Amino acid sequence: MVQKSVAGPEIERLIQLLAKLPGLGPRSARRAALHLIKKKDQLLVPLAEAMGVAVNEIGICSNCGTVDTSDPCTICSDPKRDQSVLVVVEDVADLWALERAGAINARYHVLGGTLSPLDGIGPEDLNLASLIDRCGSEELNEVILAISATVEGQTTAHYIMDQLSHLEVNVTKLAHGVPVGGELDYLDEGTLAQALKARTQF
Amino acid sequence: MVQKSVAGPEIERLIQLLAKLPGLGPRSARRAALHLIKKKDQLLVPLAEAMGVAVNEIGICSNCGTVDTSDPCTICSDPKRDQSVLVVVEDVADLWALERAGAINARYHVLGGTLSPLDGIGPEDLNLASLIDRCGSEELNEVILAISATVEGQTTAHYIMDQLSHLEVNVTKLAHGVPVGGELDYLDEGTLAQALKARTQF
Repeated sequence: MVQKSVAGPEIERLIQLLAKLPGLGPRSARRAALHLIKKKDQLLVPLAEAMGVAVNEIGICSNCGTVDTSDPCTICSDPKRDQSVLVVVEDVADLWALERAGAINARYHVLGGTLSPLDGIGPEDLNLASLIDRCGSEELNEVILAISATVEGQTTAHYIMDQLSHLEVNVTKLAHGVPVGGELDYLDEGTLAQALKARTQF
Repeated sequence: MVQKSVAGPEIERLIQLLAKLPGLGPRSARRAALHLIKKKDQLLVPLAEAMGVAVNEIGICSNCGTVDTSDPCTICSDPKRDQSVLVVVEDVADLWALERAGAINARYHVLGGTLSPLDGIGPEDLNLASLIDRCGSEELNEVILAISATVEGQTTAHYIMDQLSHLEVNVTKLAHGVPVGGELDYLDEGTLAQALKARTQF
């Protein structure tokens, strides 16, 4: 459906671009645009500036594939990080989630997706060659595969496992089980079965 | 809760500003920021530009109170609009909704809210004085109050009615009834009662 233009072309363009953000549809993009225009000094001006900074300064880390203003990124160039552990994640969002959890002080490698033959995504489309390179050249004790427990994620994990089999690095994966704070009633059978199988001493 | 910083200060600032948009929370703002950074050329650059244009060119129409790149706005300066009818709306979003509906070819007056003594919003906080001025000085036949059927909206409508009582202008309001495509089952009793009371010949 072609939406009738309700404002000048400049506002329409702003709405159309905002509607491309995940989480915003055409209707909420209009609300967001109006909110921005109404809060010009408090929100629109600083956001336009922050985006300008992002355009000019943010890039991809050539080492691990995350986004940052420096290359190599802050994490890769942090000497306090455990250099012997590498956490492999699908996406920058997963790296951010692990960093927020603050559970590990290691370095990362961002694949940029998972293998998915049906969608035409093969090993060459992911940040995989550089992972194999890093595992061969860096002094690593452990590679943690923090990859989704989906079919594609597990296919990717097996592929990586296979590619690293000739190296002496220990490859591990995240534990399956009941989420902390999760109610059993709402969990799927697969998770429950895994959690039972991997039960620990109380 | 203070969120742990997961990226450089430039990215964090972008996330924090995006989170202030209606419809985006802290989590979806992170997703949006990441999406923007990944789609730099297709989305981030044009959006930053569109915001720059909005900062510099979009303002408030001094006549009706809507947002536009010209002042008086495109609608106010459109000679094809019926100059004798004025539609009073609460917000620019309502003006846009009426324009999308395409049901009327009149001009508008944007109040910028509704009277709400509990929130300390009095007549001087709204675009009301200029409405009274316009109704006195322009050759109007009809003022349509397209204001929400809420307590505040109706208070505002009565206030306007009162202020315009000495003028010879015809003041009307939107019809109440069953929304087109709406199921009776889901409608509140107030709407159903109004729809019954205002029933028309089949």
